[in-house]
Amino acid sequence: MKIADKIFYGGDYNPDQWDNETIRQDMIYFKEAGINLVTLPVFSWAKLEPDEGVYDFGWLDELMNLFAENDISVCLATPTVAQPAWLSSRYPEVLPVDIAGRRRTHGMRVFFCYNSLKYRQRAAAIAEEMAKRYQNHPALAVWHVANEYGTYCYCPICQAQFRVWLRKRYGNIDNLNEKWNTAFWGRTLYSFEEVMLPTELNDDYRFNPAIQLDYMRFVTDSTAECFENEYRVLKKYTPDIPVQTNMSGYIKKLDQFKMAEKMDIIGWDNYPWPTDDRSFIAFKHDIMRGLKNGQSYMLMEQSPNQQNWQPYNKLKRPGEVRLLSYQALAHGADTCLFFQMRQSIGGQEKFHGAVISHAGHNDTRVFREIKQLGHELAAIGDACVGAYSSSKVGILMDWNNWWALELASGPSKDMNYLSTVAKYYRAFYEQNISIDILGYGADLSGYKIIVAPMLYMLKDNISAKIEKFVNDGGILILTTMSGLVDENDRCVFGAYPGPLRDVAGLWVEETDALFPHEKNGIEFSELLPGFDKRYSCGFLCDLIRLTTAEPLATYTDDFYAGKVCFSRNHYGAGKAYYIGTEPEQAFLNNLAAEICQQAKVQAPFQADEGVEITVRHTETVETIFIINHNSASACVQLGNNVYNNRITAEDVSGRFELAAYDVAVLVRANR
Amino acid sequence: MKIADKIFYGGDYNPDQWDNETIRQDMIYFKEAGINLVTLPVFSWAKLEPDEGVYDFGWLDELMNLFAENDISVCLATPTVAQPAWLSSRYPEVLPVDIAGRRRTHGMRVFFCYNSLKYRQRAAAIAEEMAKRYQNHPALAVWHVANEYGTYCYCPICQAQFRVWLRKRYGNIDNLNEKWNTAFWGRTLYSFEEVMLPTELNDDYRFNPAIQLDYMRFVTDSTAECFENEYRVLKKYTPDIPVQTNMSGYIKKLDQFKMAEKMDIIGWDNYPWPTDDRSFIAFKHDIMRGLKNGQSYMLMEQSPNQQNWQPYNKLKRPGEVRLLSYQALAHGADTCLFFQMRQSIGGQEKFHGAVISHAGHNDTRVFREIKQLGHELAAIGDACVGAYSSSKVGILMDWNNWWALELASGPSKDMNYLSTVAKYYRAFYEQNISIDILGYGADLSGYKIIVAPMLYMLKDNISAKIEKFVNDGGILILTTMSGLVDENDRCVFGAYPGPLRDVAGLWVEETDALFPHEKNGIEFSELLPGFDKRYSCGFLCDLIRLTTAEPLATYTDDFYAGKVCFSRNHYGAGKAYYIGTEPEQAFLNNLAAEICQQAKVQAPFQADEGVEITVRHTETVETIFIINHNSASACVQLGNNVYNNRITAEDVSGRFELAAYDVAVLVRANR
Amino acid sequence: MKIADKIFYGGDYNPDQWDNETIRQDMIYFKEAGINLVTLPVFSWAKLEPDEGVYDFGWLDELMNLFAENDISVCLATPTVAQPAWLSSRYPEVLPVDIAGRRRTHGMRVFFCYNSLKYRQRAAAIAEEMAKRYQNHPALAVWHVANEYGTYCYCPICQAQFRVWLRKRYGNIDNLNEKWNTAFWGRTLYSFEEVMLPTELNDDYRFNPAIQLDYMRFVTDSTAECFENEYRVLKKYTPDIPVQTNMSGYIKKLDQFKMAEKMDIIGWDNYPWPTDDRSFIAFKHDIMRGLKNGQSYMLMEQSPNQQNWQPYNKLKRPGEVRLLSYQALAHGADTCLFFQMRQSIGGQEKFHGAVISHAGHNDTRVFREIKQLGHELAAIGDACVGAYSSSKVGILMDWNNWWALELASGPSKDMNYLSTVAKYYRAFYEQNISIDILGYGADLSGYKIIVAPMLYMLKDNISAKIEKFVNDGGILILTTMSGLVDENDRCVFGAYPGPLRDVAGLWVEETDALFPHEKNGIEFSELLPGFDKRYSCGFLCDLIRLTTAEPLATYTDDFYAGKVCFSRNHYGAGKAYYIGTEPEQAFLNNLAAEICQQAKVQAPFQADEGVEITVRHTETVETIFIINHNSASACVQLGNNVYNNRITAEDVSGRFELAAYDVAVLVRANR
Repeated sequence: MKIADKIFYGGDYNPDQWDNETIRQDMIYFKEAGINLVTLPVFSWAKLEPDEGVYDFGWLDELMNLFAENDISVCLATPTVAQPAWLSSRYPEVLPVDIAGRRRTHGMRVFFCYNSLKYRQRAAAIAEEMAKRYQNHPALAVWHVANEYGTYCYCPICQAQFRVWLRKRYGNIDNLNEKWNTAFWGRTLYSFEEVMLPTELNDDYRFNPAIQLDYMRFVTDSTAECFENEYRVLKKYTPDIPVQTNMSGYIKKLDQFKMAEKMDIIGWDNYPWPTDDRSFIAFKHDIMRGLKNGQSYMLMEQSPNQQNWQPYNKLKRPGEVRLLSYQALAHGADTCLFFQMRQSIGGQEKFHGAVISHAGHNDTRVFREIKQLGHELAAIGDACVGAYSSSKVGILMDWNNWWALELASGPSKDMNYLSTVAKYYRAFYEQNISIDILGYGADLSGYKIIVAPMLYMLKDNISAKIEKFVNDGGILILTTMSGLVDENDRCVFGAYPGPLRDVAGLWVEETDALFPHEKNGIEFSELLPGFDKRYSCGFLCDLIRLTTAEPLATYTDDFYAGKVCFSRNHYGAGKAYYIGTEPEQAFLNNLAAEICQQAKVQAPFQADEGVEITVRHTETVETIFIINHNSASACVQLGNNVYNNRITAEDVSGRFELAAYDVAVLVRANR
Repeated sequence: MKIADKIFYGGDYNPDQWDNETIRQDMIYFKEAGINLVTLPVFSWAKLEPDEGVYDFGWLDELMNLFAENDISVCLATPTVAQPAWLSSRYPEVLPVDIAGRRRTHGMRVFFCYNSLKYRQRAAAIAEEMAKRYQNHPALAVWHVANEYGTYCYCPICQAQFRVWLRKRYGNIDNLNEKWNTAFWGRTLYSFEEVMLPTELNDDYRFNPAIQLDYMRFVTDSTAECFENEYRVLKKYTPDIPVQTNMSGYIKKLDQFKMAEKMDIIGWDNYPWPTDDRSFIAFKHDIMRGLKNGQSYMLMEQSPNQQNWQPYNKLKRPGEVRLLSYQALAHGADTCLFFQMRQSIGGQEKFHGAVISHAGHNDTRVFREIKQLGHELAAIGDACVGAYSSSKVGILMDWNNWWALELASGPSKDMNYLSTVAKYYRAFYEQNISIDILGYGADLSGYKIIVAPMLYMLKDNISAKIEKFVNDGGILILTTMSGLVDENDRCVFGAYPGPLRDVAGLWVEETDALFPHEKNGIEFSELLPGFDKRYSCGFLCDLIRLTTAEPLATYTDDFYAGKVCFSRNHYGAGKAYYIGTEPEQAFLNNLAAEICQQAKVQAPFQADEGVEITVRHTETVETIFIINHNSASACVQLGNNVYNNRITAEDVSGRFELAAYDVAVLVRANR
Repeated sequence: MKIADKIFYGGDYNPDQWDNETIRQDMIYFKEAGINLVTLPVFSWAKLEPDEGVYDFGWLDELMNLFAENDISVCLATPTVAQPAWLSSRYPEVLPVDIAGRRRTHGMRVFFCYNSLKYRQRAAAIAEEMAKRYQNHPALAVWHVANEYGTYCYCPICQAQFRVWLRKRYGNIDNLNEKWNTAFWGRTLYSFEEVMLPTELNDDYRFNPAIQLDYMRFVTDSTAECFENEYRVLKKYTPDIPVQTNMSGYIKKLDQFKMAEKMDIIGWDNYPWPTDDRSFIAFKHDIMRGLKNGQSYMLMEQSPNQQNWQPYNKLKRPGEVRLLSYQALAHGADTCLFFQMRQSIGGQEKFHGAVISHAGHNDTRVFREIKQLGHELAAIGDACVGAYSSSKVGILMDWNNWWALELASGPSKDMNYLSTVAKYYRAFYEQNISIDILGYGADLSGYKIIVAPMLYMLKDNISAKIEKFVNDGGILILTTMSGLVDENDRCVFGAYPGPLRDVAGLWVEETDALFPHEKNGIEFSELLPGFDKRYSCGFLCDLIRLTTAEPLATYTDDFYAGKVCFSRNHYGAGKAYYIGTEPEQAFLNNLAAEICQQAKVQAPFQADEGVEITVRHTETVETIFIINHNSASACVQLGNNVYNNRITAEDVSGRFELAAYDVAVLVRANR
């Protein structure tokens, strides 16, 4: 989907907080900075519908017209993330009940029961009012539904709906008892009406992961319905305008693959922490690109300067916003949007960075940087909008797996799915190997390498797909904590990794948990190309029993010193590597290098360390992003082709040097 | 106000826990130790009024007579801090509701709703009963209302009263919406009836600081009314007996300047921690003296030995109680009172120190120390009772500023107003420069130096007062986080520090937050007198744009290395220093020394380090307190005048040596 | 009590989770491993009674018969720890209310109100149904009631029952007021109906320890009644079958001495942490043996491999389960039972170790170890079953003392009774001196040494018993925090340690609390045999006033340097040592050695460090357990007698060497 013939540049704007003079002045600043899209009115339900069914859209009409006059597009938001006070007080059931069983009172945003029919009715009504009114407005470019969904509610309505959801899923109570293994601890249920929501009131310590797992699924489904409730209304009036909601990205609490199914295009908010590795930010972008099978997405929010809600809100360093913006484009974003255009004078986020700060004028470092970037993006044009990436390496990632793995009690409390996947991602990323993040439903056939970190839960036929992938010649990486449970978190019989035993060529007899300060070692008896003799490892140590696999390396310590911890199994035309522990990053980097060489997967260009390179292509043009993350200049070997740097308009070739923190966007010059 | 012609010496006594023989024995010990005042019956409501309107004062009559016979005055307490069980069970609305929305059950002390009419009615009734009964009793010296107020209640009565309070404050709901900036996140209210108390039920993370700020103001006002409810009754019968409540001192939750307005004299409880710097204890005394514009106060409680409620309750070292007692007198106390005279045999505080311990006799280290002190205080007499201090340095301190600053989300979570003010206080204190703690309402005209640490909130015309102060020749110190918001926590437009920009001669473009382990540096290009070349700094770093100010020092690190962090602006006849970061203590000490020299403000005498010197004066006599905090002897240069040490009755002059931890109280000998 | 003519070997089995084929296969594995007892059906209430009064025992009949056929005994469990869903939903009052006042919902196990009459009625009914049905079944060997009691409930029923309990205890409200010292903070009660349960709703910080103490007593009494409710039913039908409940061992929340009174034999669950010292595990076994005056007990549960609910669940090392099993037998266990026989496929504990793992077969390290142990135990036979230990050293331990000591506010928050007792225990344990853990009710007359760590609470005439013990020639060790309060936590008058002052020959004037990082020192002026010159100490430091005792050592630091911290008092024919601080372990070890020598108490044999030796005897035979905890071989000097090692069937004598982690079970060969 090509959302526009340019890179949308702008962000959230809350003109309902400002007087007309300020707004008029803002238009001048927006033009100066190259802003071409604003998102609004995200939080204006109370103003647009001051009482039930009473609408006041006059002020928004004026704004819409003003933007249209100024050639600024609008990402038009249904204001349904923050219901008006009258809705909460007249219908208290719209307010959520928290995990402690307490009915909340009107206050925060994203503070409603996602299953409340009254909420859904009023949300659909205002969405329809907006759709009818602005369906043909020239400023309307994209729809935006609500904002950063993610509330968990435990009210009686949710309890009733959860029972309905379970009946649909399991058909009858005996089947539910079997799937939840309620015989354990004698938790048998005789009727769906006896199902209690998993809350603080009945759960002291993860008493039944299967219930919690289903509740997380139910909350995702309910939230997706909440989105659809407005989506349907908007599409009725404007079938051609894309509809999205800005997701908090990689948050654990909602299965974003499921949410993505309902959206025309993915929108997400990128708020990295100062301590995040650059690979982690890239990883999150690639998750977003993966949610709809590689389709490009909207970067809906990022901060033009420091945040306010982190413990220590560091200023964005000079050039940092530009670097982050290009990194987004490099990984699949078609837009570059900020929260927020102008800093609020009060409220929780009054110290959140903005394009125009409390100082109220354009004589600031931040404004100057935003303006420079605006001009660069205009020069780049639409070459990369709607473009795709081509990856030969895929990493499996699944929210059900994430939930179940971290709900498990034992063997270690430090189970961290996201950071484990991120470590494997990083191993390829640092070598500029393009990676796709794949759900269990993805087609694996186009890939040469599949990495499946902690594939704890087998479902959706994933083990058969993996077997076929390897049998057909693919290279697979499996790790500890794989193949343990089915989709209801019931353990496999007949040893781990269950149905993956054949492809792995081994079974796992036991798994030791190490204290955080403890380490073991990985030692090769015979060196593999590109590997060192020894690496450190920790966290978990599988005690492996090989069947058809060959040992590659062994533990160095403890009673299992000398036992295999890393193996390879030839299976059909392919190979499966198994890593029975958590190795240090260097091991993973060396493994990634070695198997990429085997599979003939390589980076677009050779470059100095710290230089990130990605390629996005449409049917007609390839756009190359080069980002120098170093605090010194660095080189890329472009070879003999001549490229045009869209930022500087210069042609470049051969040894190409970028200044510290500089960026280049290249397209072939000889077209 | 001169509360007595002697220093009151004694403390809390709970004779309702003891039999007659024990009480008779206590009288003998009291006489031996020089005790001349006891406070009671703080916790005897249940005994005095065993059922509604049924009073039993006989036992108290006997005690009052016994004290009178023994020449011991009574600080007579209304017992209203701990309502009887019948009041809680008959009228459950007197019990508070906590921030989680839970109605508490009868149990703890200070455990009532400060807005409950029933509580107020019964409290006034027993106060009246006591006032009528003892108005002419010879033992009655001071009134004491309740004890250490400070409960926050969130019950329906408080909710209703808060709405009334808001209507009075804002007049109409539109004005409230504007002042609370409810447009942010669409929190518009259509009626005061929609205002919900800020509790855990609607606030996950400081969702609207303005509401919380107003609630803190409301709780202070309600608590002050609670005090006034009894005050009025007592004054009706005994207009000449001073009325106070013992405050927990510098606690954040109540605006003690507001509480002070209602009290005849300040009473407070001094419970330092073993780790407290001596300057911090002095600072708290000076806050107390500042609450009523320099009026002396009652030290109502301190511990004669270890506490019981600290994590590690260290014994008071030999001489430590004496040192702390003199420090109180040195800073403005007119009394020296303890909690408690005799140790309880049971309950939460059974291991709290007491003049008479569980051992039950006078053969203890603690009793001997108390006795020695009692004899010294008798020798000192009333020279300092009701006396004043003369300070040329004032530090601004305001509870609203404290609340709002620490409610703010961003830039750093480690905002700590009290410890920041304490650091500036310490810079002067260590040089024996007398300091007044000033509310925003204070008259600044008599001061030469005003320090305004983190003057985040501008209100009550404080910026104009500050401008005038500097214009008239004063020296001002401003810091980072100044001039950001108005009294409703709404940010200033047109750059920080808002209306203080002119006097500061600069504006602050951005403020970086440092991680706790991070440091930056302050470097002088040209040395100022008394300063070193370099200092470390941290926490926050302002990026400053100078207008009329001159740069004095610059940052040493990060992308803003070389940019100004410390400046001086000549404004009218005065000067304003601006410190854009949190410097190490040495920097502040050098700055204090330098500007004191400029302003010709100096210590009473030169002395060795670790010797504290203060002066208190009445119209006729000056009393000089000298306290040696060192574990070795130390010297003071008294000059040519001859002074009489009231403790030893010796005349001293010239080079005066004090033993380790010793104290002297001097008055001019040649009067 | 001799529970069987063999060591019961087996554990918890949940066949209701398995199909018939799996169960048949399990019988084969059980026989292979020497399993002779299984515990069931602990969690099958929902299956056995699918609706009120509707029973389904057919499946259990089949199992019982199957076990009988296979010569496997059954420890038959009433399934009352986990009530069925219908019971919770039909009678919500069976669900507990938590300390925050929240009625729980059906979910967890051990999740019922122990005072609910409806719960007790239905529990007794199913117990009766089982007793009637299986009273004559050949497989029935032992009864097992519920499982790991320990829920605290705060519901209205408990509130009412607590008031009844208090009325019985105190007779009238005046007496309660006196005993609770409610005069403190004016908490006087006029009627038992005003007593509120101590919950989060009325207690912010240990507001009245006396109430909490009584509530803990009440919960123990109520829980014991809950047990008795079923016990009575079972005994009616099977007077000769022993009845027990598996206790969580040394848990603080229930007074296990009180629980023990109701049980025929003690059962407990041993789940050591990987970081536990071996002495701590031995200590817990000795507590269990102490609960019924030295009677042997059932080890009901231990894990055949890692746990799942610890933060880091380490594998049991090779041989570790064997070592732990023999340590249990060595200290008084008559059984060796595991949780669990087969690993669940789902639920909270699916990763808990089991004899048969998810792999489902016998080809595992764990199975092989279990099998080896089974064969060894069979070889050992019944020599030690029902056997006793003979100890000359007793350590006093009391739950009321534990509760009150740790409820106290002050002098230090780090009060830890269990670990303090464990330190004194360890001092003797490491020298292979047998120790009895004694309640206050124990007969002290047979002991030569009594250790009374932190004997905070004096009650049940314990001080008189101690005086007599010393007077008659015994050696006593007293410590800091002794003799402070009576059974209602009211402090003694007339100085600590109250009634123990005479025997100690001193009084304690003050007690200093040290910060965790602070240390003081213990210094001898004149060396005692076996002691070093100096030791470190910390935590608390008593300031002691000697009366008749002689000083042995003094503090090295602080203002009390040079004052006595360790003393000895000759009293009658005996001696009392007083330790006024917390010394390092070496001091206690040296003290233990010295007084054992004085009292002529010695280890069974001399052995290398790390070798544990215990002796258990019946009237006819003495069984000696030797356990080498070292990772290298070690020696024991057996002397001239010849012993038969029941494990290897070899005769041994003189210098006997055990391999690393090896075990020997010896009986005299020449009988």
